[in-house]
Amino acid sequence: MTEHDAAAPRPAGVSRRRLLGLAGAGTAGVLAAGAAGGLIGRVTAEDASALAPAAPAGPASADAVEFTGPIQAGIVTPAQERLHFVAFDVLTDSRDDLAGMLRTWTAAARRLTAGRGAGPVGAADGAPAAVPDDTGETLGLPASGLTLTIGFGPTLFTTADGRDPFGLASRRPPPLVELPAFDGDEIDPAISGGDLCIQACANDPQVAVHAVRNLIRLGQGVVRVRWTQLGFGRTSSTTTGQETPRNLFGFKDGTNNLKAEAAEALDRFVWVAPGDGVDWMVGGTYLVTRRIRMLLEAFDETPLGEQEAVIGRAKGSGAPLGRRAEFDPVDLTAQADGRPAIPETSHVFLSHPNTAGTAILRRGYSFVDGTDGEGRLDAGLFFIAFQRDPATGFVQVQRKLRTDAMNEYIRHTSSAVFACPPGVQGDDDWWGRTLFEG
Amino acid sequence: MTEHDAAAPRPAGVSRRRLLGLAGAGTAGVLAAGAAGGLIGRVTAEDASALAPAAPAGPASADAVEFTGPIQAGIVTPAQERLHFVAFDVLTDSRDDLAGMLRTWTAAARRLTAGRGAGPVGAADGAPAAVPDDTGETLGLPASGLTLTIGFGPTLFTTADGRDPFGLASRRPPPLVELPAFDGDEIDPAISGGDLCIQACANDPQVAVHAVRNLIRLGQGVVRVRWTQLGFGRTSSTTTGQETPRNLFGFKDGTNNLKAEAAEALDRFVWVAPGDGVDWMVGGTYLVTRRIRMLLEAFDETPLGEQEAVIGRAKGSGAPLGRRAEFDPVDLTAQADGRPAIPETSHVFLSHPNTAGTAILRRGYSFVDGTDGEGRLDAGLFFIAFQRDPATGFVQVQRKLRTDAMNEYIRHTSSAVFACPPGVQGDDDWWGRTLFEG
Ligand code: HEM
Ligand code: HEM
Repeated sequence: MTEHDAAAPRPAGVSRRRLLGLAGAGTAGVLAAGAAGGLIGRVTAEDASALAPAAPAGPASADAVEFTGPIQAGIVTPAQERLHFVAFDVLTDSRDDLAGMLRTWTAAARRLTAGRGAGPVGAADGAPAAVPDDTGETLGLPASGLTLTIGFGPTLFTTADGRDPFGLASRRPPPLVELPAFDGDEIDPAISGGDLCIQACANDPQVAVHAVRNLIRLGQGVVRVRWTQLGFGRTSSTTTGQETPRNLFGFKDGTNNLKAEAAEALDRFVWVAPGDGVDWMVGGTYLVTRRIRMLLEAFDETPLGEQEAVIGRAKGSGAPLGRRAEFDPVDLTAQADGRPAIPETSHVFLSHPNTAGTAILRRGYSFVDGTDGEGRLDAGLFFIAFQRDPATGFVQVQRKLRTDAMNEYIRHTSSAVFACPPGVQGDDDWWGRTLFEG
Repeated sequence: MTEHDAAAPRPAGVSRRRLLGLAGAGTAGVLAAGAAGGLIGRVTAEDASALAPAAPAGPASADAVEFTGPIQAGIVTPAQERLHFVAFDVLTDSRDDLAGMLRTWTAAARRLTAGRGAGPVGAADGAPAAVPDDTGETLGLPASGLTLTIGFGPTLFTTADGRDPFGLASRRPPPLVELPAFDGDEIDPAISGGDLCIQACANDPQVAVHAVRNLIRLGQGVVRVRWTQLGFGRTSSTTTGQETPRNLFGFKDGTNNLKAEAAEALDRFVWVAPGDGVDWMVGGTYLVTRRIRMLLEAFDETPLGEQEAVIGRAKGSGAPLGRRAEFDPVDLTAQADGRPAIPETSHVFLSHPNTAGTAILRRGYSFVDGTDGEGRLDAGLFFIAFQRDPATGFVQVQRKLRTDAMNEYIRHTSSAVFACPPGVQGDDDWWGRTLFEG
């Protein structure tokens, strides 16, 4: 290991192998091995179930999660309990102002994730005549596992009206393109897209909201909020041993997620590698968000057996249909009464790597956003997926889900895609440096 | 104590004296003493600061809070971390259907607050062909301090178009009238009012959301959701010793709240007493909700000294201006540099019992509901107050706040008032029995 490696804190769940893979600047390392030409091959059952239960992961809920490192925190970090996601439009045409804000944000993010205020003085310790450099609602609260993860949208590189104000057009990663339309989409553009995003996850919503709000404040004049989403009840376990939570249909969600410990699968499906042709994104990943309304009333009136046939797993145990325990392997060829045990129209059948031919890292949160004005809750899943290439990640899976029986019970209402750069390393580094200076 | 008393579980924070006061059915008991004619007298400094720190109260965050008792849980119960509040419109004109639903709700509420499913079978244990009697997202989760508190709106007694479908018009408590308009109100009728409400508080949002959703489901055909509000970061400590949380202005909120232990003050300001003339409401209280948007951007740009002058307390410690510690008594006559230490336009000066001449029990929660469409967070305080009479409670305080310097930074956007009946006691009792049968 180089001295740099020794100094870099190791994000939870990132294997030594993984760090080594990213260490050699010029050498492709382990990463490139399975990734020649960016082509993602067919997945084996072993790939998909590198999920052997291990010791429970995840920091105590009050602790700090290290902000710096070769990859950004908040991607394979054990999913915290709460989410505040925010997408921004850039207001300025000045590259310097934009880069300046990103430096300011980085400094604030270092402090916030350590459980401190957004500025060096703090909310209550300055002169009475001075405007405080923090808003104060987390005074006395611990770091609460806060992670802040940044992403850059396609419109940061080329604006919707075709301009290139920041000289970034030539730096746009080819995989970073607007998502295609899918059958049944009911996307509201007002809560979709964005030039920049911040995903704030924490075990205390006050901490996540505080961080977002202070970043908004520090971005005044340079960016403005385009849309924002609060979430609770993480619906994806992202580390082996983290108990699988339930989504608003009442099913365990995240059982067969890619897990932080599955280093090989992550290298293959999540992290951008040196061989992928976008140097500034190496160690980064692409983030897709879909706000998916769940038609709870309809699903709730469906018989238990039908609910399970829609999902492909048992409601109580979370076991694949025809099996007994949650982590029993998904066998798509298994028969029961002469028919596939896991129906071919079920969500699990269609999204499983053996059908979809790919895998994604999910990190969803439930939401309830009031009512739909017709006496029903406007509730669902804020779906987040990380992948090495949206085309061979989310888009490929979502296309497979065209015949998903679950479609009757869900509506996609917002959509966005962002490029998440690698992590911030060392004291002088900042969010976006590899893009602006790299 | 009667046998009934001995059997009744004692809600957290309710004094023995209090239970005794409510025990005698025919006798007015201690309650009536300070309450002749419903007139609420001027408050002394001692009344308002019966707040001597005691042992920390509040159940461990996973435990169950007893649902039954002489008063409803969720009023003086130590404030849980999360809120899901829902207001309903009644769809039916059938008194039997309405009462039937209230019985069904009560049975479900007993189970839900004990950490069980909404129905006797559960989400995953029924026949495959049967529709589950619970939605399942709390399978495996503990009770998480869930309380469910019901309230009846003025329009339940006489509909907006003047009808009396349930024969309840003559039973309307005189204090239960629509709130008057206040200066500066920006009330949206679509998210105001309601025939019924349920306040669900829990330490896990999934548990609060689950409860509300299952009650909605059980009310299908009888009620429909009118509006709903999610909240986090309780902004009012309701028990002595519970640490005071901060609101989104970054100030400690709830310091000088009425506290569960202040039995005498609660009897005087919160609980309806036998002498008040509405027998079915004895042991009940009135609930006022105000969704108050906080103009965070404006407040954040205000110098620290001005922020503190607006509130009347120090931002860091929460001490009254001119004093050192959070729980130092509020002295409205104290001078600093020849002027009132606590400015006469400050929120604390005006809302303090010595100015307002009354007191209320607050139980607010912060909210972030996305953006306002103009690049700002739609965030604030969902303000909840309990009082013996809204006219001498919320309305009286809110009138005093006409000159509140804080008004520049807040907007009231929704408003509602409900009568919360006494608690459910014994196995055959149900929410609303005293109203329908009493
Ligand atoms: C509201 C919408 C959705 C709900 C309620 C939902 C629910 C579930 C549930 C209950 C499982 C089984 C447990 C597990 O292995 O995690 C699952 C698995 C999965 N879902 Fe979804 N999902 C939704 C949307 C999506 C979308 C939009 C995608 C991607 C386009 C997706 C991709 C997957 C994948 C890849 C798996 C793992 C399948 C396997 O390997 O067995 N899901 N989902
Ligand atoms: C967004 C709106 C509001 C904010 C941010 C806010 C904030 C605060 C803060 C920081 C305190 C001092 C700490 C404490 O003793 O709790 C306080 C006290 C208080 N507030 Fe508010 N408040 C709001 C709205 C209201 C409204 C609408 C009412 C009633 C009409 C009210 C009634 C009171 C009362 C009675 C006190 C206690 C005063 C005392 O006894 O010292 N507040 N509030």
